[in-house]
Order: sequence, then C-alpha cells, then structure tokens
Amino acid sequence: MSIVTFTTDFGDADGYVGAMKGVVLSRSRGSSLVDVCHNVPRHDVAAGAFALVQAAPYFPPGTIHVAVVDPGVGGSRAEVIVVAKNHIFVGPDNGLLTLAAPKPDAVFAIEAPAFRRTPASPTFAGRDVFAAAAGLLAAGAPPEDAGRLLPGLSALGPRTPLPVNVASILHVDHFGNVITSLKATSVPAGTKHLLINAGETGATFTWAKTFSDVDVGGYVAYEGSAGFIELAVRQGSAAQTLNAPRHQTVQWEAVSA
Amino acid sequence: MSIVTFTTDFGDADGYVGAMKGVVLSRSRGSSLVDVCHNVPRHDVAAGAFALVQAAPYFPPGTIHVAVVDPGVGGSRAEVIVVAKNHIFVGPDNGLLTLAAPKPDAVFAIEAPAFRRTPASPTFAGRDVFAAAAGLLAAGAPPEDAGRLLPGLSALGPRTPLPVNVASILHVDHFGNVITSLKATSVPAGTKHLLINAGETGATFTWAKTFSDVDVGGYVAYEGSAGFIELAVRQGSAAQTLNAPRHQTVQWEAVSA
Amino acid sequence: MSIVTFTTDFGDADGYVGAMKGVVLSRSRGSSLVDVCHNVPRHDVAAGAFALVQAAPYFPPGTIHVAVVDPGVGGSRAEVIVVAKNHIFVGPDNGLLTLAAPKPDAVFAIEAPAFRRTPASPTFAGRDVFAAAAGLLAAGAPPEDAGRLLPGLSALGPRTPLPVNVASILHVDHFGNVITSLKATSVPAGTKHLLINAGETGATFTWAKTFSDVDVGGYVAYEGSAGFIELAVRQGSAAQTLNAPRHQTVQWEAVSA
Repeated sequence: MSIVTFTTDFGDADGYVGAMKGVVLSRSRGSSLVDVCHNVPRHDVAAGAFALVQAAPYFPPGTIHVAVVDPGVGGSRAEVIVVAKNHIFVGPDNGLLTLAAPKPDAVFAIEAPAFRRTPASPTFAGRDVFAAAAGLLAAGAPPEDAGRLLPGLSALGPRTPLPVNVASILHVDHFGNVITSLKATSVPAGTKHLLINAGETGATFTWAKTFSDVDVGGYVAYEGSAGFIELAVRQGSAAQTLNAPRHQTVQWEAVSA
Repeated sequence: MSIVTFTTDFGDADGYVGAMKGVVLSRSRGSSLVDVCHNVPRHDVAAGAFALVQAAPYFPPGTIHVAVVDPGVGGSRAEVIVVAKNHIFVGPDNGLLTLAAPKPDAVFAIEAPAFRRTPASPTFAGRDVFAAAAGLLAAGAPPEDAGRLLPGLSALGPRTPLPVNVASILHVDHFGNVITSLKATSVPAGTKHLLINAGETGATFTWAKTFSDVDVGGYVAYEGSAGFIELAVRQGSAAQTLNAPRHQTVQWEAVSA
Repeated sequence: MSIVTFTTDFGDADGYVGAMKGVVLSRSRGSSLVDVCHNVPRHDVAAGAFALVQAAPYFPPGTIHVAVVDPGVGGSRAEVIVVAKNHIFVGPDNGLLTLAAPKPDAVFAIEAPAFRRTPASPTFAGRDVFAAAAGLLAAGAPPEDAGRLLPGLSALGPRTPLPVNVASILHVDHFGNVITSLKATSVPAGTKHLLINAGETGATFTWAKTFSDVDVGGYVAYEGSAGFIELAVRQGSAAQTLNAPRHQTVQWEAVSA
C-alpha cells in the first residue's frame, strides 16, 4: 500500500484537492492518502517549501509527496518527479521541493503520456499532471519511466549571503512564532537573551528551551522543532510584536545578561 | 475496501466532521475516508454543489460521496441516496447533489431504520442520517434497501434563461478566480479579448489558455479545469477586481482586437 | 488496522500536523489516519475538549485519539495515555481529554523511551511524544508499557456550581450556534420560549426541535446533537446576536407563552 501526501495552497472550500485525490485513487485504489496542509498562503512557494520540509522527513521510506504551490502553472517551469532519501516528491520545479530534497538522487521531467491526464487543463496541473503522476507511481510505476533525467532542481529564490548579525525570517507559523534562518550553533555559550531589531520594531527575547520557560506574555527564543532558532511570545504572537512579515530580515545580538 | 468522501460547510474547528467519520467507520471499519472540503461557505448550497462536481467525477467507480450543506436540516427536504454513473451520493435533496448527478439512475429516500441512527438528532442529519447511510452502503448494503424510489432530484434554484450576452457567476474559488456559466464554445474563433461588465465595475480580459499567458497582475479569461470560462487576475483576485459576488450576472462581449 | 484520529489547534498552513502523521505511519504503516479538526482556537483547551467529545464517541472500539491543544508544552503538565470505554486517548493532561474520558479506566504517563522520539523537541510534544506514543500503540504496544499508572486526569478548569437560572457557554460552533451547559431536562414541560440575558444583550428564543421550526432569521433554542441546549439564529449567528464569547455565563428563564 502506497502512502501519498498532499501539500497545497488550494484552501478548503473548493473541489480542487478532492479532484487530485480522486485521480490518485483512480490509478491506485488502495493508496493511503494523507493531508499535510492546504492553506499555504496563496502562491507563496517558500511557505509551501517550509511546510513540506517540516512534514516529509517523518514519513516512512517510499512515501510519495505531492506538493502544489504553483503560481507559474501553464508556464515554462518544469513538472518533475524527484527521488531523494527514499522518498518521492511530485510537483512544479519552482523551488517548492528544494528544501525537502536539497540533494536529490534523481529528477525526472513528467513527460510520458501515461504519467499525465489527456487532455490536460492548462490551469490545473495539480490534477492532470501531479496527481496523475503520483497515482501511477503509487501503483508501482518506476519514476524513470516519466521522462528525461533533468540536471537538478531550481533554487528557492536568490540567496544573498547575510551578514553574521542578520537573519532572515523563513516562516511565520499558525501561532505567530517567527522561524529564523539562524541555527542554534550560532548562539554563544552563556547567552541569556537575544536582542532582535526588526527596523521599526524590536524586542528582547529570553534564550531558553521552550515556551513555558517564560511567563504567559513573555518573549522567548529557542531552538525550534525544525532545528532553527524561533522567536515567540508565550500564548501571544511574536510576528505581531515584531510586525515581521515572512522573508524580511532582522538584526540579532546575543547578550550574556 | 469502500472509498467515502466528505464535502461539508462544517468548518475545521468543531467535532462535527469527526463524528460523521466515526459513524462511517463504526459501520464499515475498513473504509478509506477522503476529505474533499469542509469550508464551503455556510449554507451556500450552490457552492457546495460546485465543489462536489469539481471533485467527484475523478474518483473511481463505486465511490460513496457524502455531502452536507443543509440549511433546511430537520425540515421537509428529503434525505436521499443517489446512484449515478457508478457513483453513490448521500445528502439532502436541496440541489446540493444536482450538478454532480444531473441524470441520476435512481434516487432513494433514506427511510429504513438500519440506514439511520436512532434516536436521530433533528439538528445533525449529517451524523445520524447521511453518515449512517454511507457507512451501511460502504459495508455493502444495496441502495435500494434504504427506502422508496423517488422520482428525481430537486433543482439547484430557479434557472431563468439568460440573454446570450449575459453569464452568471457559478463560483468564486479560493484564488478569487471567477467561474462563469459560459462554455468555451460560446466564444467565436478569432477572439482576442472578453469585455466584462459587472454593473459598477468591469474589465477587459485577454482570451488565452492559462494564467502565465499574461504578466503578473494581468487580466486573463480561459477555459477552466471544470469546462467553464473563468476570469482571473494573475496572482491577484478577479472577484475583487470585479466586486463580483457569487450568483451575480455579468454582461460579456467577445472582441477580435 | 488501527484507526488514529487527530484533533489540534495547529491550523492548516504548516507542516506540524503532517509531521505527526508521518511519525504515526513510520511506526504503524497500515494505520488509518482520520482528521477530526485542526482549527481549534489557539490554546483554547476547553474548545479542543469539546471538539473531541463531539467526535470520539462515534468511532469504533480500539480507536486511538491523539489530541494536542497544549499551551503548556515543555512545562510540567503530564503527557498521558488514557484508556476509557475501549478507546485510547493520547495528549497533554491539561483538561483536554477530560470531557471525552470523564471516568478513565487507566491513565499512564508517557515515559518509556520507546514511546517517545529521542531527542525530543521541547516545543513539539505533538510530534515527539504524542504521535510517537500513538504510533507505537497503533502497532500493538500495550498502554501499560508506556510508564507509571497515574491517579487520574486533571479537571478542565475550576468548576463553580452555577445558580439554577444561570448557564455557562460551553462552546460556540462554526455556525455561531451557542452551546450552553443546560440539559433539556432542566426545561419544564409546556415551555414555549427561553428568555436569555447575556448582560448587555439578550433575546427570546422559541423552544423547538430544530432550526426549521422557525423562519430564516428566527431565534430558536433546542436540544443539540451533543445533548445540551443550544441557542441559534436560523441561517444567522446567535453568538453575534448575544455578543456571547465562549466561557461567559447567561441567565435563562423558561416561559410557557
């Protein structure tokens, strides 16, 4: 029995996600379908990439992950199947799959007619290309039958190296927690607080292990479950406090007092 | 193994959908449950009908589709099982099932005690009638055991024939794309643009194949994945641009320049 | 095949729920995963408890229910497995499980290394403790292997006995229906209306069976599907009409005219 996961920005009020699931089950009836999430902010490829990398590594080997955040649907971005660490990813080559599969074993274009529905709607590759391909893979088709071997995946936006005291905001989660690009190894031993400067706003966060190390309403920075340093307001929203949109950068300083 | 899908306006913050799923699994433990969507706008039967017809045709034969958008719950609308094109639909007879099953092979009232939970809550037919019936069907019960054969399904609201240059808005999706009642065959060969007049607002849409045929922010009209002409603003919202609510009508004109 | 349900306040835009599902499937690949809901209001343990008790009783015996609304994550609240009425509940001991398992057969602390992921993130017990434990249980591990037998579950907030003409608001659902703590047995025979006083606001509700006993826009009180008296405005929102937040109390009076 194949496991097929779904990560999209399609929301929960239309039949789009359902159509994709129907296509997968029509091609591989016994598959186990698993929703990751469907309210990735519309067209926000980076947010979709982050949701996927938060979830995908915890699934068993052989899982097929379909991801669709695809503002360029119908355009020139490639449609791909990616094999990486015994998982298979299916989606547009626009950066969405890059965090989850940073060093792919192989990337194939989805070209073979059997891996697509015909005729395909030029506005719904999720159904007619990605779900169709995932359904065939779930039924046992080998990824290499899909099409040409491609040299690799596109990067997720330009990456300018940041000064050492600057971090970018990778993600703002449902709780308003701000996930930064900093790794805990960047924080020196003996650090008591992180000073965060977000331009017009800023705050001092206690460097700790978890939310409950501060009082309700307190500011806390910690190594998050994805391995990055996160900024939180206990039972509040650090994103609101810092007025910090995703993809912004913040200045940071570690202090021992 | 039976496949059972769910389409509701119950949202994602209560236990209502969970209760329905529990009832189905209690009657047919091995069923494969699939969420279509649960944030159909509250009480919007037409929107639910549209979500269902977007998704249902892509599922394999024998799939059981439970749909509940039921503002008349507890009232006089019938509770039905519909057999159509080798699919089975379960829900209220208020127009919700009419798009997905326009020419049903058979419509049965859900009357037999085995197809209902007893005592049934008069406010939650989703759990006590529709999920109960779906669970029994998933376990192999024949639809004709549910009750009387009914003559057909109720229509989805009154349908006044529209003038040829007028289209109604069938649906506004999660992306703000406006799905009209027009079929692509209505657009003459050589058309370059569609002029849309929505009363106080209006715009000119490029007649094309997909979003990426226009620049970001550009206006595009195309044959959508459901076979109707859709109006979109690339990475924006045509619904906002036109200030167009669902069920409104718009005037349209095809021009070759 | 084990059934595992999920009830959280994690929303539908991150990978958190997906990570939990992956952990369960990695430990028990054939499990059937079922979403109850993921938009419980953030940190609202009482709302989560209510969603769980609305859904859990309808699942078949042996179902494993994972519930995570956990504002004290990383703090001192216990992490537990609860056996009650042939169901198994897994979550924080903060009141979340108390409505669904009011008289547990046994409560075990989740302590054994096999029931947790190592190292565990101090901010994501959902993945590293609750999903890990649920996955092992789904694979057949007995609950008593998880750790110490605890004396019972924590209560869901302080419960002050209310005067007989006062009811608390247990829940406001997706439709704006107000679910009160009143049981139908409190309403005398011959009652025609309930007068509700919510401080600055108030209204008279027709005592009836279901929404359709009043006109659209009408006010109706009835015994709800969870066995409590609910206040509704047909196709409107009683919560808005009464400006009634969850956990507030209202005064009520039954009148026979």
